[in-house]
Amino acid sequence: MHKITETAIEADPRLPVIRMTRDFTATPEQLLRAHTDPDLYAQWVGPDGMTTRIEHWDARNGGSWRYVAEREGTEYAFHGCFHEVRPDRIVQTFTFEGDPDGVALETLWFEDLGDGRTRLRAQSLVDSFEGRDAMLQSGMEVGVNEGYAKLERMLADGTV
Amino acid sequence: MHKITETAIEADPRLPVIRMTRDFTATPEQLLRAHTDPDLYAQWVGPDGMTTRIEHWDARNGGSWRYVAEREGTEYAFHGCFHEVRPDRIVQTFTFEGDPDGVALETLWFEDLGDGRTRLRAQSLVDSFEGRDAMLQSGMEVGVNEGYAKLERMLADGTV
Repeated sequence: MHKITETAIEADPRLPVIRMTRDFTATPEQLLRAHTDPDLYAQWVGPDGMTTRIEHWDARNGGSWRYVAEREGTEYAFHGCFHEVRPDRIVQTFTFEGDPDGVALETLWFEDLGDGRTRLRAQSLVDSFEGRDAMLQSGMEVGVNEGYAKLERMLADGTV
Repeated sequence: MHKITETAIEADPRLPVIRMTRDFTATPEQLLRAHTDPDLYAQWVGPDGMTTRIEHWDARNGGSWRYVAEREGTEYAFHGCFHEVRPDRIVQTFTFEGDPDGVALETLWFEDLGDGRTRLRAQSLVDSFEGRDAMLQSGMEVGVNEGYAKLERMLADGTV
């Protein structure tokens, strides 16, 4: 199987969906923990220079979450609920509070590639192509790649 | 404004979405109550001849829900989380446990038409056209119309 070393980010031509794929030197269990343990998640999510404060975190079926990201005195808050948390998949909702009517349905899959590697696939579904394209143009690619690079360092040094 | 007396159900040609619209002789507050009070909701949701048992219900931002519908000894279970519950809108996730990997993001809007009438708009968003079309072909139209007819009777007799 072809090894994906950078995050592949693509917009589906037929669906209001963004898909991301990235391979990690990690087990599925480690990736699940990195996405469900609030102390770990706060250390890697988002771009460099942004700090994340978890306000609420209950990563289980029917739980919910909220965090505030801060850079140079400006805060950006996000919240949602966890529809499902299981070993191979997380399904959750996502709202950036700067756009309080916007809601995405996000799904993460952890696919065991063997040999201590796991493919993370992520999908973000919204109800309009305009909303989807605005997300793509918001600079999310930088945040995604810098965030996953932090996660890779935490996996390499044993933090996760 | 044209009065909608039956439920208009439509599939969006460009998006994997089902939309429903129906006008009620009710205030927005009454429709919100009918959708958030578990004892009321269990009385009207679903087709005639089906009984609904609420297993879990926490209708607030970040809460969750589960119910079991039963007819002639066969049970159908559903669950999800409430992303947002506010006076003019409910956003929630929805899974039929017979198809446990399927997840819909549902939005309900309560639009005050004045004169004691409210337009209910509902949208169900999934991540494939095939999944959307399967929902439409599952007989949902009967359940939706019979359920809303029960709700109208409960509004007329003062139950809600």
